[in-house]
Amino acid sequence: MRATFMYGAGDVRVEEVPDPRIQAPTDAIVRVVLSCVCGSDLHPYRNMPTSGTGVPMGHEFLGVVEETGSDVTTVRRGDFVISPFAFQDNTCQFCREGFQTSCVHGGWYGAGGVGGGQAEAIRVPQADGTLVAAPVGEDSELLPSLLTLSDVYLTGYHAAHMGKVNQRTTVTVIGDGAVGLSAVLASKQMGAERIILMGRHASRTNLGREFGATDVVPERGKEGIAKVLELTGGEGTHVVLEAVGHLPAYEMAYGVVRPGGVISRVGVPQYEQAPIGFGSLFGKNATLTGGPAPVRAYIEQALPDVLEGRINPGRVFDRTVTLDQVAESYKAMDSREALKVLLTP
Amino acid sequence: MRATFMYGAGDVRVEEVPDPRIQAPTDAIVRVVLSCVCGSDLHPYRNMPTSGTGVPMGHEFLGVVEETGSDVTTVRRGDFVISPFAFQDNTCQFCREGFQTSCVHGGWYGAGGVGGGQAEAIRVPQADGTLVAAPVGEDSELLPSLLTLSDVYLTGYHAAHMGKVNQRTTVTVIGDGAVGLSAVLASKQMGAERIILMGRHASRTNLGREFGATDVVPERGKEGIAKVLELTGGEGTHVVLEAVGHLPAYEMAYGVVRPGGVISRVGVPQYEQAPIGFGSLFGKNATLTGGPAPVRAYIEQALPDVLEGRINPGRVFDRTVTLDQVAESYKAMDSREALKVLLTP
Repeated sequence: MRATFMYGAGDVRVEEVPDPRIQAPTDAIVRVVLSCVCGSDLHPYRNMPTSGTGVPMGHEFLGVVEETGSDVTTVRRGDFVISPFAFQDNTCQFCREGFQTSCVHGGWYGAGGVGGGQAEAIRVPQADGTLVAAPVGEDSELLPSLLTLSDVYLTGYHAAHMGKVNQRTTVTVIGDGAVGLSAVLASKQMGAERIILMGRHASRTNLGREFGATDVVPERGKEGIAKVLELTGGEGTHVVLEAVGHLPAYEMAYGVVRPGGVISRVGVPQYEQAPIGFGSLFGKNATLTGGPAPVRAYIEQALPDVLEGRINPGRVFDRTVTLDQVAESYKAMDSREALKVLLTP
Repeated sequence: MRATFMYGAGDVRVEEVPDPRIQAPTDAIVRVVLSCVCGSDLHPYRNMPTSGTGVPMGHEFLGVVEETGSDVTTVRRGDFVISPFAFQDNTCQFCREGFQTSCVHGGWYGAGGVGGGQAEAIRVPQADGTLVAAPVGEDSELLPSLLTLSDVYLTGYHAAHMGKVNQRTTVTVIGDGAVGLSAVLASKQMGAERIILMGRHASRTNLGREFGATDVVPERGKEGIAKVLELTGGEGTHVVLEAVGHLPAYEMAYGVVRPGGVISRVGVPQYEQAPIGFGSLFGKNATLTGGPAPVRAYIEQALPDVLEGRINPGRVFDRTVTLDQVAESYKAMDSREALKVLLTP
């Protein structure tokens, strides 16, 4: 089969590799029907040191179960399934508390001998705890929105969930990428009436307005902070959802969070050290939360919203290419020509 | 009257100054009956650059109202009152949300023309929003415990409150100072059944055990982290209450927090930059919260617990001196001879 590998910054290749095979009784093999490129894939696309060994790429996919290991009971051959971007047993102590990305038997696609989703097929470890069957066919118009339950929409949802967004909270969303726009949509779903979207790309912020943003702030840095404070009577917002991952975005976050408010991060931090002392978080009792989204915790609840048309998070996809064109799709997203690209095998 | 001033590291003096006077109609003058030295006073005691101008010291006090401004309605001359360590109007938008230390009309004792509590008397701005009357006399045996409602016990309480301690959460408390021990007591009050106290001073950790600690870990750094993980089956605790304020304490905090858990800081951070990326907080969806305790939000609820003897947080005081001996009390706390020192005028 064909699968996508990254060999270094800017170097994405599709290669012919052996078909994946069941390795453990808890595995399933899924034929990929639809996958996509993630904003987080752009971090190695910009920074990965050149390597002689390709890293399997892709962690968001929908597909059809082709084969299951002997212990798998919740999905069977022929089922149409959604996979979270990480696998998990969904039964361990951390899974039960809703933090499946910390599963003691879990892991990440593209690492530790597990392939990536930007491929024709993939081996899914811990299939019972990972895969969620969806009652649709391969030709459903809902596939793009269902694919967002693999990562992007539910990552935005996780940000809002950890930030405790509700009817009484004002919200700032930092970042007009697909996760930021998803965070806007999730905040709207949770009842937020004031959602300020910080982003500079009109085509994206326009979609953000359709998803529920009430204000758009294109300014960044100090000017951006000043603008949000101006919009909120100098107070800042109760919740700030940080969907970028770079330090300047975090710096804006603590600048606009209200005393006693919450910064919820889902952009994978491209930094380790950052300000958290009296002048940033502590002095105003600001809370910092977030992390890799345990989307498995949220799929079953979000599924009816997609199936019954209450939300259409798949609108974040603005281009579809075949797997052979995957390198171009990385380039298009990196240059911001495309917001988020669908891949068909 | 006599009042305490700090002129630099290790340089604490009691000086004769003019009596405080009403300056605004919302002020009250309180004759101090009992005050004390705070762990946070030790930070400038160790680090303050030498200055020709003394900084008024002390922010924890009980006393009797001597005079009130024309707008003050909730306390009157002769009332015995508790003051939070910060003043506030208790009516602004942030006060109403329970974050009185961010009050738009609030401030700190010892700054901006407001005196300190390690004195014979003090001017209290925003008296209506700040002072809480307590039905006791100046000779009550409850005074030490009532004084802890000014700061230390309710700062420990704030840590536990922000950390959402309850019957189902395991807790690590970092620091066996008076705030750490208070955090143990507050966690016990909130129902925590497993409370691990990290501290090395047996006389203090023994009191911690009496307050509710189930385990004591004297090790620090990597050894301390390993020990807490060993005690918790490798998982860490749901909540970590950080009551020190130095970077190594924070580093232990993210080492022992469980995936999806909460680090709640009330030790005033003596650092601004610290790790918060994938390897510390983000990867395990750990939440960081805390800040200056809005003790005003908690006094009325805690008061009956003290008055009716359900808690005795005043046990953190292990020495009483007169104001003239205040310099010695700083020295005794700095050298850890004393845990926390009461001051009588």
